[in-house]
Amino acid sequence: MNATSFHYIYYMADVVRNKQVIFKDYINGFPKTSDMVVTSDATIHLQLPVNDDTGLILTKNLYFSCDPYMRSRMSRMTERSYINSFTPGSPIIGYGVARVLDSSHPDFKKGELIWGLINWEEYSFIKDTSSLMKIEHTNVPLSYYTGILGMPGMTAYVGFYNICSPKKGETVFVSAASGAVGQLVGQFAKLYGCYVVGSAGSKEKVDLLKNKFGFDEAFNYKEEPDLNVALKRYFPNGIDIYFENVGGKTLDEVLRNMRPHGRIAVCGMISQYNLDQSEGTHNLFMLVSKCIRMEGFMVFEHYHLYPKFLEMILPLIHEGKITYVEDTVEGFENAPAALIGLYNGLNVGKQVVAIARE
Amino acid sequence: MNATSFHYIYYMADVVRNKQVIFKDYINGFPKTSDMVVTSDATIHLQLPVNDDTGLILTKNLYFSCDPYMRSRMSRMTERSYINSFTPGSPIIGYGVARVLDSSHPDFKKGELIWGLINWEEYSFIKDTSSLMKIEHTNVPLSYYTGILGMPGMTAYVGFYNICSPKKGETVFVSAASGAVGQLVGQFAKLYGCYVVGSAGSKEKVDLLKNKFGFDEAFNYKEEPDLNVALKRYFPNGIDIYFENVGGKTLDEVLRNMRPHGRIAVCGMISQYNLDQSEGTHNLFMLVSKCIRMEGFMVFEHYHLYPKFLEMILPLIHEGKITYVEDTVEGFENAPAALIGLYNGLNVGKQVVAIARE
Repeated sequence: MNATSFHYIYYMADVVRNKQVIFKDYINGFPKTSDMVVTSDATIHLQLPVNDDTGLILTKNLYFSCDPYMRSRMSRMTERSYINSFTPGSPIIGYGVARVLDSSHPDFKKGELIWGLINWEEYSFIKDTSSLMKIEHTNVPLSYYTGILGMPGMTAYVGFYNICSPKKGETVFVSAASGAVGQLVGQFAKLYGCYVVGSAGSKEKVDLLKNKFGFDEAFNYKEEPDLNVALKRYFPNGIDIYFENVGGKTLDEVLRNMRPHGRIAVCGMISQYNLDQSEGTHNLFMLVSKCIRMEGFMVFEHYHLYPKFLEMILPLIHEGKITYVEDTVEGFENAPAALIGLYNGLNVGKQVVAIARE
Repeated sequence: MNATSFHYIYYMADVVRNKQVIFKDYINGFPKTSDMVVTSDATIHLQLPVNDDTGLILTKNLYFSCDPYMRSRMSRMTERSYINSFTPGSPIIGYGVARVLDSSHPDFKKGELIWGLINWEEYSFIKDTSSLMKIEHTNVPLSYYTGILGMPGMTAYVGFYNICSPKKGETVFVSAASGAVGQLVGQFAKLYGCYVVGSAGSKEKVDLLKNKFGFDEAFNYKEEPDLNVALKRYFPNGIDIYFENVGGKTLDEVLRNMRPHGRIAVCGMISQYNLDQSEGTHNLFMLVSKCIRMEGFMVFEHYHLYPKFLEMILPLIHEGKITYVEDTVEGFENAPAALIGLYNGLNVGKQVVAIARE
């Protein structure tokens, strides 16, 4: 056997099936699991090209994150898009946690753990490493890097501390409050000395808010025939800070109940993502009459604060002063349903898909 | 003739007719001149009560200001109100300029000029002087204190410099741009080194914007079948700052054309004031996708800056670096029509009513 044929055999031995979740085509309206397909058709060579010096890394993917913003990547690009669409016929892309199997990139070594944007597949070659962060603290569940220690955690941190400009004693309302971001915003606000009320869509979620996350009050918006009445019940003197995750009618009723000089951090508007035409917001004049500041933000512009964030959040986790609830489904096959569940409020806490446990 | 009857005669000699514009009753929808009535029924004793020490002032009213916000005072109070309604059967109240005829108030002397909130009548006793400012610079038209040197001037100043956070070279769009506030915002922005485009509702107004106020571009929104197309024509690279005076569909189209990190100063929404249900704003998610800050403000919270404002604006006026266009109607009888004209865009420049010229 000469050198060439030896190499060939070695090479073939590392070719494995690579399961993927493929995005079928652009959609309108509510997404369905059938908009994706789980396939084992692809194979992957589990080694870098010989003498590769292109800064490539090969990963084994461990956790996928399901996040509301992903809906916008399922639509054809329009002027309303703020992130590229998925490519029909290619894997879904999302935040995730992965183990580096091999690397020709100077910043990432074999064996290290990373979080960042990865394809929904078992193994990946990653060329664009710009979204990747090295995981240096492993005395927490690794899946936390899809949530409290990842993009949603940073979103809650930046949104609450930088955009809401909170003051001790202020009143805070959080919608979608048991979700990946909302549960943290509420806990940050409580630690800051605010009065915090959250809304969510089931009794189970409301119980979590009150009994696990320590919100002062919480309610099931689906059981409130008049949201204005509900808000007046919990905020008889009005709302100083609204952390906006849902949009639509909720925003209109919140505007009616804001206090002068209130602040609205606009993180997302999940109630609108699947509508062809968004519901109109009618009470915007209240921005004038109450001198309200309403401000949108995107977390990726603030990732330079990540080390500072970790410095704050890790001790809080270890001291049990902050808690995090995940809704974890196991296995590749369940990834599409997990993502779709988000838009129907089926997740209780941060929606994670565990692909491989080490 | 004894002392009592002498006093009686003296007293009667100072009793004069006092024309008033009376607010008839709360309205819905567009206001009409018939919602007010001009009457000469009232009389007034043109002197303070003998030995008065209540801090009262007696004024002869010279100019009335017609301002968009006055519409909200014509509706019955609701949670959407941000200022008390007018009292049916009592005079309209608005900003104006007046001469002090007599005073028992330590801060105001006979003969001085003031601007502030006054009743729409020829003469007034003013007990609540909290809104009154003394006029100390009279080498400008007195009517300017209803506009460039009064509430609208302060509104443009605070709105542009404090709320818009302008940077040299940024692109600025102003709606209702030839109005009392808009014409100043545009000129402030030009002086600051911004590219400025204004919209207005007639050829005459557009000409003013381009030829008198020095806007870079201006257009008649009534002649634009698609406002989005118009905005893209004048802002091929998008809008950094929007000074919002109109609301409604304009806001939605502006949101589509805002640049990342744009700012929207919400000063007013005149297109919505006469609607029972405001039009919905559909593109608010763009606050997130473009990290836009949208902020309402009310000028009266910023009046402590008035001396600083005068320091800036008076030299600009005297050096001819800033100009101001008023639309002045003469005479009490024309006051209702002047106010109503605002909501139909009939005014060209700041709408003033000259009641008495000295």
